[in-house]
Amino acid sequence: MSIPQQATDAIRAAGRRMDTFGWVPATAGNISLRMDADRIAITRSGFHKGFIPEDGVMAVDLDGRAEDSALRPSAETGLHCGIYRRFPNAAAALHGHSVPATVLSRLAGPEIRLAGYELLKAFPGLPTHQAAVRLPVFENDQDIGRLQSRVTQAWDADPAHPPGYLIRGHGLYVWAEDMPGALLRLEALEFMLSCELETRRLRP
Amino acid sequence: MSIPQQATDAIRAAGRRMDTFGWVPATAGNISLRMDADRIAITRSGFHKGFIPEDGVMAVDLDGRAEDSALRPSAETGLHCGIYRRFPNAAAALHGHSVPATVLSRLAGPEIRLAGYELLKAFPGLPTHQAAVRLPVFENDQDIGRLQSRVTQAWDADPAHPPGYLIRGHGLYVWAEDMPGALLRLEALEFMLSCELETRRLRP
Amino acid sequence: MSIPQQATDAIRAAGRRMDTFGWVPATAGNISLRMDADRIAITRSGFHKGFIPEDGVMAVDLDGRAEDSALRPSAETGLHCGIYRRFPNAAAALHGHSVPATVLSRLAGPEIRLAGYELLKAFPGLPTHQAAVRLPVFENDQDIGRLQSRVTQAWDADPAHPPGYLIRGHGLYVWAEDMPGALLRLEALEFMLSCELETRRLRP
Amino acid sequence: MSIPQQATDAIRAAGRRMDTFGWVPATAGNISLRMDADRIAITRSGFHKGFIPEDGVMAVDLDGRAEDSALRPSAETGLHCGIYRRFPNAAAALHGHSVPATVLSRLAGPEIRLAGYELLKAFPGLPTHQAAVRLPVFENDQDIGRLQSRVTQAWDADPAHPPGYLIRGHGLYVWAEDMPGALLRLEALEFMLSCELETRRLRP
Repeated sequence: MSIPQQATDAIRAAGRRMDTFGWVPATAGNISLRMDADRIAITRSGFHKGFIPEDGVMAVDLDGRAEDSALRPSAETGLHCGIYRRFPNAAAALHGHSVPATVLSRLAGPEIRLAGYELLKAFPGLPTHQAAVRLPVFENDQDIGRLQSRVTQAWDADPAHPPGYLIRGHGLYVWAEDMPGALLRLEALEFMLSCELETRRLRP
Repeated sequence: MSIPQQATDAIRAAGRRMDTFGWVPATAGNISLRMDADRIAITRSGFHKGFIPEDGVMAVDLDGRAEDSALRPSAETGLHCGIYRRFPNAAAALHGHSVPATVLSRLAGPEIRLAGYELLKAFPGLPTHQAAVRLPVFENDQDIGRLQSRVTQAWDADPAHPPGYLIRGHGLYVWAEDMPGALLRLEALEFMLSCELETRRLRP
Repeated sequence: MSIPQQATDAIRAAGRRMDTFGWVPATAGNISLRMDADRIAITRSGFHKGFIPEDGVMAVDLDGRAEDSALRPSAETGLHCGIYRRFPNAAAALHGHSVPATVLSRLAGPEIRLAGYELLKAFPGLPTHQAAVRLPVFENDQDIGRLQSRVTQAWDADPAHPPGYLIRGHGLYVWAEDMPGALLRLEALEFMLSCELETRRLRP
Repeated sequence: MSIPQQATDAIRAAGRRMDTFGWVPATAGNISLRMDADRIAITRSGFHKGFIPEDGVMAVDLDGRAEDSALRPSAETGLHCGIYRRFPNAAAALHGHSVPATVLSRLAGPEIRLAGYELLKAFPGLPTHQAAVRLPVFENDQDIGRLQSRVTQAWDADPAHPPGYLIRGHGLYVWAEDMPGALLRLEALEFMLSCELETRRLRP
C-alpha cells in the first residue's frame, strides 16, 4: 500500500521547519504521522531530516514492521509506535535533537520541571501559567524495546504525564492529534527548554 | 465591515518578521493595527503568528468585541485595546515572546532598567544615550481585564512611562504610530534585552 | 549629480547581509561607499538598514554635506567622512551594531585586545595568528564632530592602529578598499568578538 | 584537465550550507572533493566560502600542486591532501571555523573528549552512545607542511583516531567517503561542540 502524498509532504515540511531551528543535526531526529488506525508513515533511517527526499518516508505497522521489507525505518521507530499504540488520538510524533534538550537532559535528574511560563498553556489540562509540567528524562538505550518499556511504565505510573519526554543526551519526543499540533507543541517545549538553559547560566 | 487588504498584509508580514527572530514560538505573540478611530484589526487566536493565513486577521472594537462573533480574537486582545483607548496616536501594537524577554522578566523585580545603549534614542523624549528607560514588569494574569487595570494604573502613576512593558514569563508589548515604527521599536527593545541577558551572564 | 546604480545596489546588499547576522537592529548601523575622490554614497537617516529602499542612499562630500539638502544623511556621517579624509585608499565603511560589540564595548576599558585567532590574518600587516589586534573603544558622544576628533587623535597617536574601532554601547566601525573587503573585515571582527564574549562567559 | 560540473556544484553548495550555520566567516574555511585517485578539487584562496563563484574551485594533485599555476589554492591545501594521501577512501574534506570550535580549541589541552551523546553514533566503529570520541587539538602553525607532519604523527600513534581534528583558534577538519557524509559528520561534530560549550557555561 502506498503513502498518501499529503503524509509525505507534511513529514518533509516538518523536517524543513525543524532544520531551520537546528533541531535535526546530521541524521538525528525523526518524524511520523498516523495514516490510519494501524499504519504509520515514518522517516527512513539515515537521511538528514531537513532534506528528506520524496522516497524518504515509509510505512510501518503499529509494531514497527516495515510494509516494504527492503526499506529500513528510523532507528527509533519503536518509540513512535509506542506512542501510537498507547494514545489512539495521537496522529503525529516528532523527535527533535536540539542543543538545549541535549544539554539539559545530560545534567538533569529523572525529570525537568517547567513552571511559570505562559507557553505552558499549550499543554492539555493546563489552562493556566501557574501550573507546572514535569518532563520525564529517560536514560538512553540502544535497545529501543527496552527503552519503550520504561517509557510505558512511566505512563502507567503517572496518569498526568505530559505529551512529551526527554531521552538523556538524545533529545525530545512530543506528540499531538495532528502534525500542526505536534510542531506547535515541539516549538513551545523547545522554547521553554531554551529559557531554562539561559536561566541556569545566570544561576549556576 | 471588512478588513482592508493592506492591514491584513501588514499584520501577516509583521508575523513573518517576528518569526525569523524567534519571537512568536508556537501560538505565542499577537499583532494588531488600528484601522480607524475605533476599529482594530488583530490576529485571531490559535494560529502560529509566523504563518498567519489570509483569514487569520479579524476586526474588534475598542472594547475588544468581535465584529464577527463567530471568530475568536487573540486572548490578549484586551491589552491591545487598552493601548489604543489610552493613546489616540497609537496605530500598531506588537506582543513578542522572546527568550530574553521571558527569562529576564521571570528574574526581574517591578522593572527592567536599560541604560547606556545608543538604541535608547529610538524612544520618544530620549534624544541621548545617556538617559535610561525603565520597562515595567507586570505579573502574568489569565484575567486580562485585571491585568489591563494594573497596566493602566502604572500609566497613571508615571507620565514618563515608555511605550512598552513586560509581562512576567510572557513577553514584551510595544506600540507606535504605525506598523513600521512598532517593528523598529520591538527590534530595538529585544536587542537591548539580549544585551542585558548577555551582560548578566558575565556578571551574575 | 546622481548616484551610480552599482553603488546603491552594493549598499543595499550590504545592509541585507548585515541584517541576516542581526547587526543592524531597528535603525542602527550605517553603510557608505566612496564614489570618487570627494563624493561619498551613504545610507539616509532613519531607515532599517536591512531594507534600504531604492532612494535610501544619498550623496555627501568629504565634510558630510549633503548634495541634496532636502535629504538627511545618517547621524554618523561625520565618522564615515573622517575615515575617507584620513585614508585615501578607503572606499567602503561599515557600522555594525551587534550584541557582542555592544556588550563587550560597555564592559571594556580603552581597548579590546584580540589574540590567538587565525582570522587575525584578515588584518593588514598581520600575516600570522600570533600577532594581536588592539581595537580602540571610544566613549559614545552625540556630538559626532567631537567624537571624530578623539578618533583622529587616536590615529595620530598610534600608526599601527587597525582599520576598525568600537564606540561604547554603540557598535563597531570598519573600513577597507572596497565593499567586499569591508564586509569580510566586519564579519571577521564580529566573529572574533563573538568568540571573546563566549570565552568571557567561561572565565568571568 | 577541467573540473566536473558536479564537483564544483557540490563544493559551492557545501559552502552555502556551512555559511547558514556561520561556519565560514570572512574567508575562513575550505572545502575539497577527490575527483579521482590523485586529483583533488579545492576552493581557491581568498573567497568567502558561502559565495564561491563558478570559477572559485581549482584542481590540485595529492601533493597540493595546482594544475593551473596561475591559480592560488586554499592556504590549507596541504591539510586536505594529507587526508587524501593517508585515507584512500576519503573523498571529501571540510574545514569549518565556528565559534564553538574556535573557543573550545583555544581553551583545550591536547584533545577534546565527547561522551554521552547519541550523535557519536555518526562515527565509524562507535555503534553506541556509551563510547567516547577524543578529538585531537593541534597547535596552529602558518607552516602547513609542519602542521601536517604533526597530524600524521598523531594518526600513526593512535589507530583509533576519529575522522576529524581541531586546530587551536582555527577550527575543525572532518572527512568522509563523500560530500554528503562529510557534511553530516561536520554537522554532528559542530552540534556536540555547541553542547560542550553550553555545558561548560553551566559548570565553569
